[in-house]
Amino acid sequence: MKVAVIGAGYWGPNLIRNFLSQDEVENVIACDRDENRLAKMRKTFHGIETSTEYEDVIKRADVEIVAIATPVSLHYEIAKKSLSAGKHCWIEKPMTVSVVEAEELIELAERNNLKIFVDHTFIYTGAVRKMKEIITSGRLGELYYFDSVRVNLGLFQHDVNVIWDLAPHDLSIMDYLLESKPLAVSATGSCHVGNGLEDIAYLTVQFENNLIAHFHVNWLAPVKIRKTLIGGTKSMIVYDDTEASEKLKIYDKGIEVTTREGVYDTLVQYRTGDMLSPKLEQTEALNLAAQHFIDCVKNDKKPLTDGTSGLNVVRILEASEVSIKNQGKLITL
Amino acid sequence: MKVAVIGAGYWGPNLIRNFLSQDEVENVIACDRDENRLAKMRKTFHGIETSTEYEDVIKRADVEIVAIATPVSLHYEIAKKSLSAGKHCWIEKPMTVSVVEAEELIELAERNNLKIFVDHTFIYTGAVRKMKEIITSGRLGELYYFDSVRVNLGLFQHDVNVIWDLAPHDLSIMDYLLESKPLAVSATGSCHVGNGLEDIAYLTVQFENNLIAHFHVNWLAPVKIRKTLIGGTKSMIVYDDTEASEKLKIYDKGIEVTTREGVYDTLVQYRTGDMLSPKLEQTEALNLAAQHFIDCVKNDKKPLTDGTSGLNVVRILEASEVSIKNQGKLITL
Amino acid sequence: MKVAVIGAGYWGPNLIRNFLSQDEVENVIACDRDENRLAKMRKTFHGIETSTEYEDVIKRADVEIVAIATPVSLHYEIAKKSLSAGKHCWIEKPMTVSVVEAEELIELAERNNLKIFVDHTFIYTGAVRKMKEIITSGRLGELYYFDSVRVNLGLFQHDVNVIWDLAPHDLSIMDYLLESKPLAVSATGSCHVGNGLEDIAYLTVQFENNLIAHFHVNWLAPVKIRKTLIGGTKSMIVYDDTEASEKLKIYDKGIEVTTREGVYDTLVQYRTGDMLSPKLEQTEALNLAAQHFIDCVKNDKKPLTDGTSGLNVVRILEASEVSIKNQGKLITL
Amino acid sequence: MKVAVIGAGYWGPNLIRNFLSQDEVENVIACDRDENRLAKMRKTFHGIETSTEYEDVIKRADVEIVAIATPVSLHYEIAKKSLSAGKHCWIEKPMTVSVVEAEELIELAERNNLKIFVDHTFIYTGAVRKMKEIITSGRLGELYYFDSVRVNLGLFQHDVNVIWDLAPHDLSIMDYLLESKPLAVSATGSCHVGNGLEDIAYLTVQFENNLIAHFHVNWLAPVKIRKTLIGGTKSMIVYDDTEASEKLKIYDKGIEVTTREGVYDTLVQYRTGDMLSPKLEQTEALNLAAQHFIDCVKNDKKPLTDGTSGLNVVRILEASEVSIKNQGKLITL
Repeated sequence: MKVAVIGAGYWGPNLIRNFLSQDEVENVIACDRDENRLAKMRKTFHGIETSTEYEDVIKRADVEIVAIATPVSLHYEIAKKSLSAGKHCWIEKPMTVSVVEAEELIELAERNNLKIFVDHTFIYTGAVRKMKEIITSGRLGELYYFDSVRVNLGLFQHDVNVIWDLAPHDLSIMDYLLESKPLAVSATGSCHVGNGLEDIAYLTVQFENNLIAHFHVNWLAPVKIRKTLIGGTKSMIVYDDTEASEKLKIYDKGIEVTTREGVYDTLVQYRTGDMLSPKLEQTEALNLAAQHFIDCVKNDKKPLTDGTSGLNVVRILEASEVSIKNQGKLITL
Repeated sequence: MKVAVIGAGYWGPNLIRNFLSQDEVENVIACDRDENRLAKMRKTFHGIETSTEYEDVIKRADVEIVAIATPVSLHYEIAKKSLSAGKHCWIEKPMTVSVVEAEELIELAERNNLKIFVDHTFIYTGAVRKMKEIITSGRLGELYYFDSVRVNLGLFQHDVNVIWDLAPHDLSIMDYLLESKPLAVSATGSCHVGNGLEDIAYLTVQFENNLIAHFHVNWLAPVKIRKTLIGGTKSMIVYDDTEASEKLKIYDKGIEVTTREGVYDTLVQYRTGDMLSPKLEQTEALNLAAQHFIDCVKNDKKPLTDGTSGLNVVRILEASEVSIKNQGKLITL
Repeated sequence: MKVAVIGAGYWGPNLIRNFLSQDEVENVIACDRDENRLAKMRKTFHGIETSTEYEDVIKRADVEIVAIATPVSLHYEIAKKSLSAGKHCWIEKPMTVSVVEAEELIELAERNNLKIFVDHTFIYTGAVRKMKEIITSGRLGELYYFDSVRVNLGLFQHDVNVIWDLAPHDLSIMDYLLESKPLAVSATGSCHVGNGLEDIAYLTVQFENNLIAHFHVNWLAPVKIRKTLIGGTKSMIVYDDTEASEKLKIYDKGIEVTTREGVYDTLVQYRTGDMLSPKLEQTEALNLAAQHFIDCVKNDKKPLTDGTSGLNVVRILEASEVSIKNQGKLITL
Repeated sequence: MKVAVIGAGYWGPNLIRNFLSQDEVENVIACDRDENRLAKMRKTFHGIETSTEYEDVIKRADVEIVAIATPVSLHYEIAKKSLSAGKHCWIEKPMTVSVVEAEELIELAERNNLKIFVDHTFIYTGAVRKMKEIITSGRLGELYYFDSVRVNLGLFQHDVNVIWDLAPHDLSIMDYLLESKPLAVSATGSCHVGNGLEDIAYLTVQFENNLIAHFHVNWLAPVKIRKTLIGGTKSMIVYDDTEASEKLKIYDKGIEVTTREGVYDTLVQYRTGDMLSPKLEQTEALNLAAQHFIDCVKNDKKPLTDGTSGLNVVRILEASEVSIKNQGKLITL
């Protein structure tokens, strides 16, 4: 199997490295308009092929997978051409710049019996997989909220705002962990640089049963915070990705509600117990992701983070942008 | 000078203790409907007077200050009677349950030439006073944002939601630190207990010049977080009230925007430097607050946290509640 | 039952408060040479008796317990007189300035059928009791080491060095947690102020079976560290007393030693697993201690921290001082 | 310039990578007895030469520097042959297994007019260089103590104990930062595995003027601690190498000693002020080290970490081992 990686900028080299390390991958073809980048790739990854013309490469018979690591505005066009040429597609996050584009790609892939994989890398980390296991086991009880903060002094993107840059990570984790379907989005934000792109933003996502999710993304924070709180009736999780060890802590804490029969008052008390920080798998997430996609392609399985996952995230991103332009108005999904 | 403290529940004893420790205070009269609480007060604070009838006490000629530490729904009525009886008023936060009530009290106090002090205790801490000093000195540059998180596994109030319970702390800090006037509020939240009161909420406050403030308050968090980030063009502050020492950190960090003449592109880079954690004054905030109010009463000065400060906070609380009932709709202040 | 508390300086008031709160205690008599201190005690604890003449008080028939909170150099004399007068004795840590004194007091108490309680307060904290429970359960396996650090910018004692001031806390915890008997001590230290008292010191305590304990005590540290590591074959404990919550963490970590039969080499690997931070009891340790001692007195039980515990600690302190004067020479206990 | 790297196990590849990245280095020749390792090196570092016979390589005319990354027991022999062959030597830490060996190598290098560089990598980190700058500036005042803890669940060496494995890092930092000459060493430790090598140890190093240094090294700790405290009369440093940012904190704290004239007593008070965490250089230490050594070789300069630095560390290691075998006896250096 050969893999074409389109885009050899910031993230592309990570894809090349991880695809090369897969037993099933015979070789990688790196594509970029910039010949300097390709020269660098040839030096770093001895023996790989390179090309400045991705359109030629995606038509090659020996290429089975096309991995797209270009600016997000180009994802749709390249994925469409690749799917049309009969190739399975690995698309970086966010999948596309709009719901319409994502839906079209999903439909095209289905029609051609091809797989789309969206690179929501965090889903393949030990921490997120452990949280999925815990939530699925019922240990948290009924879920109350999902609260995420992802802030730092950021490298500025020139083409997208902080929501499209940072929120896909947390939205994809939410999409993976929560069974419920998000109903509506409200977002606020602000931009402080002349480019008109928000550099700080807050998203609220509403679900059924009073489940609420909230996201704080910020390129202007002096410290790096990557913290997610997940609260349930029985226990609660703190996931801190900046911790070297003990990234995940499960608190046997919660509230107890006693509604006395025939009585108006509700008695609410809190309950505290032990905290457990489970051992996490250490395998590199991107490597697991590449392995998983190859397995899906070879054995005709549905990827964990398929086009629908990608679409779910894009749908919220798109709605957030509408809401932010409308001063926090609630946008139904 | 004698001080009447109305309400001897959770917070009242702190007021009694701190007023008793002031040189100018001859004695304190503790008032509460509950005789058991009064008995406890007499035991703890030997020599104080007590009464179950506050209306009698506020009419006494020897009482100069009435301090109100009852549930918030009673603040207005008691303050109105006290001001009408010619007494200066110390009112716990939040000042009242509505803007209308707060405005009426302010007007009544002015007419009677009396002082209102709203107990925004945090304003009198070493950390907040140091932040004020730093911001006033221009060290942060132009302000970008004020972001605050105040969450824990909370004791549940039966009469107000989490916004009215926790947000006054942070809103009063914001009101004190920022020179600009808030323009509008958008809020979201959720309740998970049968009492219909939000136990988790998010507020966005909009200002001129793209300054944005945001508040996360939550009674259902397994860990205690009290963290405020304040970002400016030149440097940024992290204020972590759970830290025993080093509550305040000032980062010589920021972004640099270069707009090249005649060129479409804006170049944004970040800049990092030293971090300074200044020594903070350790005096108990409530003691300073009591001392400050007595000074204002005796020397006819305007309290730092007067009725207007209280009103500013109530205005945002009220607007938040409207917004939350309207799904995050932007409410102009 | 009446309790005489001798010494109303730094720690005495805590004893008075905690004895007063016991149901069995009718009243407390505070004794101090300094009448000003006694006046302060009468103001703080309304209704207590006071006296400048402790020798009269310990002879009173209505006094059952004498609690000694004077400088350590006076412990022996006052305890001896109290035991001779037929009173049970609560002695602050360290019990005495020498092994000889401690042994004499123990013998005197036994002869007179009286109880000695040494105030190793930490033994009554939730954290230390939980550690005892864990170690007793066998969860740690065989013990390897006990390592303790207790440093901060300290208030300087004028009569004892940093070892006698800070190490009794950790030595008493070690004495309580470890079943083995210490065999020998080696200590080093240094003094930097003209008074000739060490302000920084390191103690190593040797046990059988290669169990080793080490203590770092320091009055010149810019940060407060209170951290104990306890390592065993099966799991390991980190006890951090500066943590507000999560003071105790139990790591399912250790090493695995495989000695291949007939082969010279030993294969050592490490093993990592989950971490658990158990819920701890929050009751004030000193209150539990007072309650426990009264129970022992009334029901003729042996206190958990009796004269022998006090002696065990003094024996190591004394040996440490000899070792430090002899450049770290190993002193057999 | 060509560089021969002897030993392609754990650390060798880092040397190869960093030497290859130097402009002055034409190529690297990797030497190892194990052909599999060499094959791996050829794959990772395309274009490098490899050899199983280091003795041939060090005689090659085109080789100017020999870098030795073998087990420490082989350092002396290989370095001696390399120096005899006229090559400059880079030796991993610890330099040799004995003082005698280190002295002989230094003398041999001097005689042949060659450079020895000992790879005390930490000296080239931003944190240590900043500490040197601070101490040299006099900001700490007179030094009181140097206290270091380096513990974790360690990979076990089969040939050396925990002192020879971990302490060279901290001893080299101490040697670099402190101007004073160490006078004597006292050490204690324990071993818990059948190989007879200490896995936990404590070293005290004595200096003139009551300056004291202490080192805790431990392979059996459930958490990773890398913390150094340096105390002086004027301010104090905390260096925590596990911190991602803010590795260095300088506390404007200390003690003030007032000796009243004609009075026996000394009054000691402590003083607290601001804390500063300076920005640190981020360049990879090993890269700077390689660059520095090449500069020394080309321009005949004395390396910052030369043979004498290596010898200073070995001298303390050797004395520690003697002390530990003699139960903590003070060994004069």
